[in-house]
Amino acid sequence: MENLKDYLEANKDKYLNQLLEFLKIPSISADSAYKNDVARTAEFVAGNLRDAGIENVEICPTEGHPIVYGDKIINKNLPTVLVYGHYDVQPPDPLDLWDSPPFEPVIKDEKIYARGASDDKGQAFMHIKAVENMLANDALPCNVKFMIEGEEEVGSMNLYPFCEANKEKLACDVILISDTSMIANDTPSITTGLRGLAYMEVEVTGPNRDLHSGVYGGAVGNPVNILSKMIASLQDENNHITIPGFYDDVEVVSVEERKAMNEAPFDVNNYKNGLEVKEIHGEKGYTTLERTSIRPTLDVNGIWGGYIGEGAKTVLPSKAYAKISMRLVPHQNSDKISELFKKHFESLAPESVQVNVTAHHGGEPVVTPTDSLEFKAASMAVEKTYGKKPIPQRSGGSIPIVPFFEKVLGVKTVLLGFGLDSDNIHSPNEKYGLFNFYKGIETIPYFFKYYTELKQG
Amino acid sequence: MENLKDYLEANKDKYLNQLLEFLKIPSISADSAYKNDVARTAEFVAGNLRDAGIENVEICPTEGHPIVYGDKIINKNLPTVLVYGHYDVQPPDPLDLWDSPPFEPVIKDEKIYARGASDDKGQAFMHIKAVENMLANDALPCNVKFMIEGEEEVGSMNLYPFCEANKEKLACDVILISDTSMIANDTPSITTGLRGLAYMEVEVTGPNRDLHSGVYGGAVGNPVNILSKMIASLQDENNHITIPGFYDDVEVVSVEERKAMNEAPFDVNNYKNGLEVKEIHGEKGYTTLERTSIRPTLDVNGIWGGYIGEGAKTVLPSKAYAKISMRLVPHQNSDKISELFKKHFESLAPESVQVNVTAHHGGEPVVTPTDSLEFKAASMAVEKTYGKKPIPQRSGGSIPIVPFFEKVLGVKTVLLGFGLDSDNIHSPNEKYGLFNFYKGIETIPYFFKYYTELKQG
Repeated sequence: MENLKDYLEANKDKYLNQLLEFLKIPSISADSAYKNDVARTAEFVAGNLRDAGIENVEICPTEGHPIVYGDKIINKNLPTVLVYGHYDVQPPDPLDLWDSPPFEPVIKDEKIYARGASDDKGQAFMHIKAVENMLANDALPCNVKFMIEGEEEVGSMNLYPFCEANKEKLACDVILISDTSMIANDTPSITTGLRGLAYMEVEVTGPNRDLHSGVYGGAVGNPVNILSKMIASLQDENNHITIPGFYDDVEVVSVEERKAMNEAPFDVNNYKNGLEVKEIHGEKGYTTLERTSIRPTLDVNGIWGGYIGEGAKTVLPSKAYAKISMRLVPHQNSDKISELFKKHFESLAPESVQVNVTAHHGGEPVVTPTDSLEFKAASMAVEKTYGKKPIPQRSGGSIPIVPFFEKVLGVKTVLLGFGLDSDNIHSPNEKYGLFNFYKGIETIPYFFKYYTELKQG
Repeated sequence: MENLKDYLEANKDKYLNQLLEFLKIPSISADSAYKNDVARTAEFVAGNLRDAGIENVEICPTEGHPIVYGDKIINKNLPTVLVYGHYDVQPPDPLDLWDSPPFEPVIKDEKIYARGASDDKGQAFMHIKAVENMLANDALPCNVKFMIEGEEEVGSMNLYPFCEANKEKLACDVILISDTSMIANDTPSITTGLRGLAYMEVEVTGPNRDLHSGVYGGAVGNPVNILSKMIASLQDENNHITIPGFYDDVEVVSVEERKAMNEAPFDVNNYKNGLEVKEIHGEKGYTTLERTSIRPTLDVNGIWGGYIGEGAKTVLPSKAYAKISMRLVPHQNSDKISELFKKHFESLAPESVQVNVTAHHGGEPVVTPTDSLEFKAASMAVEKTYGKKPIPQRSGGSIPIVPFFEKVLGVKTVLLGFGLDSDNIHSPNEKYGLFNFYKGIETIPYFFKYYTELKQG
């Protein structure tokens, strides 16, 4: 594999420049104003797959944004790796907190700053380049398929029917995804679990119009005050979630597993300093590492109502809104939790307001076994290039499509992410280290090699 | 006074068209983008005062928006009425709830729809036209001064020093203001009290940047959840305000006065139907009429934080904000209440967040006596033109400048408003009835007449 390393070394600048072009296109899937940019990004991905030597590349239209597919089948008797990634990105706001424009990537301190640098353009791009390297050096040891979608950040709603309808086309032995992070560049880890998600939107309506707070204040239910009370009551003084039945299906993690989990390197002072908070905050009885992996959570992701401009306006608003999401753990079910939330939230409303609760996309939690052949291959690949055995670690995030893939395609997933928690994904100043980008391209071919060897027996 | 009525009848259309021109200028004092429009509005007012026959008209510059002054002194031995009003308006948002554009007035069902139609362009304009009529018919019985400002909706901050610096120029025997409402067109009333105001803005900061709610959710204090809890705790289950010391100075209104107050015509079902709410909501132990007049209140006027766009974003926000105002009653003090709020709100914050509390403009509550000469004159004027004795009524709103005037100029105020609570002031589709506009122009000269007669003894 030495020639692969040399080849990467010789093409580093070219790959980086290509990634910067990728990052310049504002593929914001959540905002319909960017529909054409998202389409342009799909074409960029397709072009790069073709240039890498991938065959049967197609831009598959959906009711939303397109899915880019491509494959290279070298021998039907060899195993097949399906690479999944996404080329869409989160909205960049709040824009004023970015040090440089989100779609004008800059390199600073050996890191690429741009929306999507880590999540997931940078990480998906590593796979295209890794396969390009293997093909250029005649070193692809098995078959590969690519499925890079454009709606991950909005719930992958069109990927589900696409997978159902294309089981044959997508048939594979393992799914490989780089859309997660490691503990640190000198502490490699592999993600062995993801939380699920239930994402709700609530609307509280008081009077039928905005009112003068002097004329009506004190006599009419204020939807903002009432929404605040309703949200406040969703967690008790120990930060336990109060929705009846919410914890019914939560997996009880053994004392041993919790002990092992808490042996991962973690410094609470570094954590607090990095976030500039005086105190951490979470469910009583659990550590930070547990709170962000094996425990479900509830966070308001957005709230708005009334006058939010400059200065003062003495209005008693007609409406107040919030986006509220819950991260779920095995064996909670997204639809069931959404239903429990809706029922409970509606029951909290006093007679003076009306409440409307709707569910955005959700997803199921997933845990991947550490004793499987594919996990071993990933572990060996990381150990080879990082010089250290990776630590298995459950992530707090969600990739709702993963449990679905496993069900529909009947195979397991390897979550081989190369990012860091400090990459500011979904935040201003998202970044991705050059080290991580190149290390990914170097490591991925080893996964292909070890996986094929182990699979072949 | 019959010739005045004929004169008004002959000029109705002209006056209405002039008012429509007045309403077309977007004099939004809160938004600096409208500075030039506010200045144009001041010139419009000055021009109309001159056309009415008012002398010494000047546009007095301030550090903010200008104050328009003018007077007509017919005899130094006669009493002087100072008319106060404001030509600035509230921001019109939410714009999408207006049936017609806020600065393109339309007349529908005998009502003028436009921002400022009632508050306060329409009501201030009645005084200019009433004095124009008296002067045209040689019927002005006393001296008159006008002071029409452009910053009432943002706290009148520059009017305070203006009054202090111009005590001689503004010297008068009574202040006359039309910036309040009556119970109904067939149930005339005169406002005998105004609530005070303390208006706060709070900022809650959690982590130093927006975070991914999967990676950090459950382990870091979420400023929206925490702000909701803090707001929720400001009122108890009886809707009493929980700020320590908040009620200390609240005037205890006698059982007799409360009984009289509750005899005013009020139909709770009409009230609920008009607002399309199933249930009213307020402090336990008080009626709606009491809650909106003799009791202090706390309302969130605006709240915002996190992702508030279309779709879903899994963000744990760095910051959350709210605008929270309290209506005050005698003998609460705005500065003292602001201080109590700040201290209490800061004390509510857990260690995981930082809180910043600032005060916007405030104002003191005021009660005007019903046994005074000026009140009698107003009552006689209304009875003359409405054919019914007006009911004295405390209003829930605030005109912070009123208690200040009384202090600096050493005189009392008459709150002779002709609007209705249903005028949608500060709301979309603000309106002012043609009946109310013309009835005001008809009534005001009677106040001048009766006041001068009573004053002359």
